[in-house]
Amino acid sequence: MNVTVNHRTRHYRTVTFDARRNEVLLIDQRLLPHQFKITAQANYRATARAIKDMVVRGAGAIGATAAYGLAQAALAFSGRDLGRFRQHIEAAYQALQSARPTAVDPVNAMTAVRLAMQQGETVAEQQALALAAAEQFAHDDVRHCEEIGRHGAKLIRQNTRVLTHCNAGWLAFVDFGTATAPLYAAQKAGRNFHVYCDETRPRCQGATLTAWELAQQKISHQIIADNAAGHLMQRGEIDLVIVGSDRTLGRTGEVANKIGTYTKAVLARRHGIPFYVAIPLSTFDWNMRSGRDIPIEERDQGEVLGAWGRTAKSSEMVYVRVANPTSGARNPGFDVTPAELITGIITPEGIFKPSDLWPNRHRLGYK
Amino acid sequence: MNVTVNHRTRHYRTVTFDARRNEVLLIDQRLLPHQFKITAQANYRATARAIKDMVVRGAGAIGATAAYGLAQAALAFSGRDLGRFRQHIEAAYQALQSARPTAVDPVNAMTAVRLAMQQGETVAEQQALALAAAEQFAHDDVRHCEEIGRHGAKLIRQNTRVLTHCNAGWLAFVDFGTATAPLYAAQKAGRNFHVYCDETRPRCQGATLTAWELAQQKISHQIIADNAAGHLMQRGEIDLVIVGSDRTLGRTGEVANKIGTYTKAVLARRHGIPFYVAIPLSTFDWNMRSGRDIPIEERDQGEVLGAWGRTAKSSEMVYVRVANPTSGARNPGFDVTPAELITGIITPEGIFKPSDLWPNRHRLGYK
Repeated sequence: MNVTVNHRTRHYRTVTFDARRNEVLLIDQRLLPHQFKITAQANYRATARAIKDMVVRGAGAIGATAAYGLAQAALAFSGRDLGRFRQHIEAAYQALQSARPTAVDPVNAMTAVRLAMQQGETVAEQQALALAAAEQFAHDDVRHCEEIGRHGAKLIRQNTRVLTHCNAGWLAFVDFGTATAPLYAAQKAGRNFHVYCDETRPRCQGATLTAWELAQQKISHQIIADNAAGHLMQRGEIDLVIVGSDRTLGRTGEVANKIGTYTKAVLARRHGIPFYVAIPLSTFDWNMRSGRDIPIEERDQGEVLGAWGRTAKSSEMVYVRVANPTSGARNPGFDVTPAELITGIITPEGIFKPSDLWPNRHRLGYK
Repeated sequence: MNVTVNHRTRHYRTVTFDARRNEVLLIDQRLLPHQFKITAQANYRATARAIKDMVVRGAGAIGATAAYGLAQAALAFSGRDLGRFRQHIEAAYQALQSARPTAVDPVNAMTAVRLAMQQGETVAEQQALALAAAEQFAHDDVRHCEEIGRHGAKLIRQNTRVLTHCNAGWLAFVDFGTATAPLYAAQKAGRNFHVYCDETRPRCQGATLTAWELAQQKISHQIIADNAAGHLMQRGEIDLVIVGSDRTLGRTGEVANKIGTYTKAVLARRHGIPFYVAIPLSTFDWNMRSGRDIPIEERDQGEVLGAWGRTAKSSEMVYVRVANPTSGARNPGFDVTPAELITGIITPEGIFKPSDLWPNRHRLGYK
C-alpha cells in the first residue's frame, strides 16, 4: 500500500488504544514515508517490542505507548489477588522501561499510571484508573505540544533557516510534535521560512519522517547529509537549530537525544547560532544528577552497516548492505548535550535557560 | 563477480595506463567492496566522466587519472599541426579539470604534464613527453604515500584509537594512501591500534572503501555513523584524527576535503584531540589566497536521498530511495577546514604546522 498523504493521515494520532480489544495501536514508523500502516500490539510484551524495534519512537509517543502498555497489562490480568496483580504490573513495567533505556518519558508516563492505580482498592478499580491515567498522559502530551508551538513560534521569523535533527515531529508524540510545533505555529502565523532536515543516520528519521511531515504541511525544506550542517553554518546558511530530547535533566540542563545532536550543538556554538531543545514536561528527569549516568543504548550494528529503502522496481521496503561485508560497527543510539551549549529549552510553560529549569521546577512538573 | 580479497587486489594499482590501447584503466570504486572490476576509459571524455561519476575518487588517484587522461588526449591526436594540437590539449584539460573542481591534484598533475610537453618540438615528441610525465606523477604519488607513512607512523602508539573520515587510503591514491599510510606503517612496526571509520555519507566511502582496505590489512576497525564521532570523543574513546585532503592551501593552511571533515575538526578541537591531514605534495595549492575561493561541488540530490548496497538476495548493487519521495536535498560534496583547527599536515617531507607550510614552500614543491 502506498502512503496516502492527506488530511486523514495527518490527523491520525501516532498512538491510540483500543479498549474493547485491549490493544495498543501504532503507526508503523519504520515503513513511513513509503507505507502508512497501523499495527495492533496484542499484549504488553508486543508493545515493549514495538518500542525496542522502533515501530514507535519519539519521546512523547513512546511515553504514551508505555502508559497504554502498562494499562494493557493491568486490563489483561484476571483474578482479584492484589499481590499477584502488583507482581504482574511490575514485570510489565520492567519490560516497557528497558525497551528504550535512554528515554525518560516511559518512566514518567508509567509512574503517573502507577500513582493513579494506588487510589484504587480492588484490581478492577485499579484497572480502570490505569486506563484513565494513560489516556490523561496522551491528552497532556497533545496539549503540551500545542503550548510548545505557541512559545517557540516567536523564534522563527520571516526567512529564518532552521536546522532540525532526527524527528521530534507529530510522529514522535501523540500529535503536533515538539521541535516541529514552533514551525507549524509560525506557518499558521503566515511566516515563510526554510528547514534543513539532517537525514539522521543510521535510521534516517530526518530524511523519512521529518521530511514527510514537512512535505505534508507544505513547509519549504531540504534534506542534508549529517555531514553537511557544519559547512552550511560556516557559509552562514543556518540561523537556528531546534531539536527534541529523550531525557532532559532538570537539575543540570543536560539533554539526551538522538546520536549526532551533540555534534550539532558544538557546531552551533562555534558559529554563534542559537540552539534550542523543545520538550513536553514528561521529558524532564528531576532525579538524575549527571548526564554521564544516562544509559546510552548500543543498537544493532546492521543499522550502521546498511540502509532501508525502496528500489525503483518494488514498493516493498528492502534492506541493503552498504558497508564492507567483513567489517563491523559501533552504534550508540543517543548522545548527551551539556547545558552550556543550549540556548534555551522550549517547554509548555515557556522558554527557559538550562540553568533556570531547577529554580522553576515546581512550575515544570517536579513532584 | 564477488570481490576477491587477496594479495592480488591489494597490490593492484588504483590507476594504470594501457599505452598500447591508449586506455586509462581504473578500479570501479563505486562497486567496491562488493565487486572488484577494472574499467577501461577509451578516450579523455570517458576519463573525465569517470572522475565526475566517482568511478575513481581520492586526491592522488584523480590526479594520476587526469594526468593519464591528458596524455591519452595527446596520444589520440593525429596530424602534425601544433596549433590544433594545443587546442585539442586545452579542451581535454578543461574537461578533466571541471570534473572535480574542488580538487587541486588534477590541476597540479596536468600542469606537470603540460610543462613537460613544452620541452618537445613536434607533436610526436610532445606526445611521448606527456606520457612520461603522467607516469612520473603516478610514480611520485606512490613514493609520497610511502614517505607520509614513515613520518605519520610515529603519531600512532600502542592502543591509539584513530578516527578517519572518507577514504584517503590506497584506493584514493595510486598506492598506499595518505591518511592510511601511517596506519600501515605503524602496523608494520608491530603496533596494535583501533580505527573508527566514519561511514561518510552520502557516498559512504568510509563504510565501503576504507573499511575494506583495513579488513584486508587485518587492522582492527569499526564503522560508525557520522553522527557518532562526537559522542565517542566526549566519552574519551578517540585519541587521534587523520584525514586526507582534496586541496590544501599552502599560503593559509586551509584544507578542503570530503563534506563532514570540518565538523570532525571542530569536535576534535573541543576535546583537545590532535587533528592531522595527510597529503602528497600534489595536493598543495600555492596560488589561492583564501579557502572561501575553493569551489565546492554541489552534487546530485540522489546521493543524499538514498543509498547503494546489496540485498540479501542478489549480488548486484541496487539503489534504494530512503528519503520521503516528495522531498529534495542539498548536497555539497566538500567543505573547508580552517588552519587553526589543524594540528599538523603530514607530508612526504615531514609533519608541518599549517602556518609553517608557506615558510617551507620550496621544500614542499612550490615553484
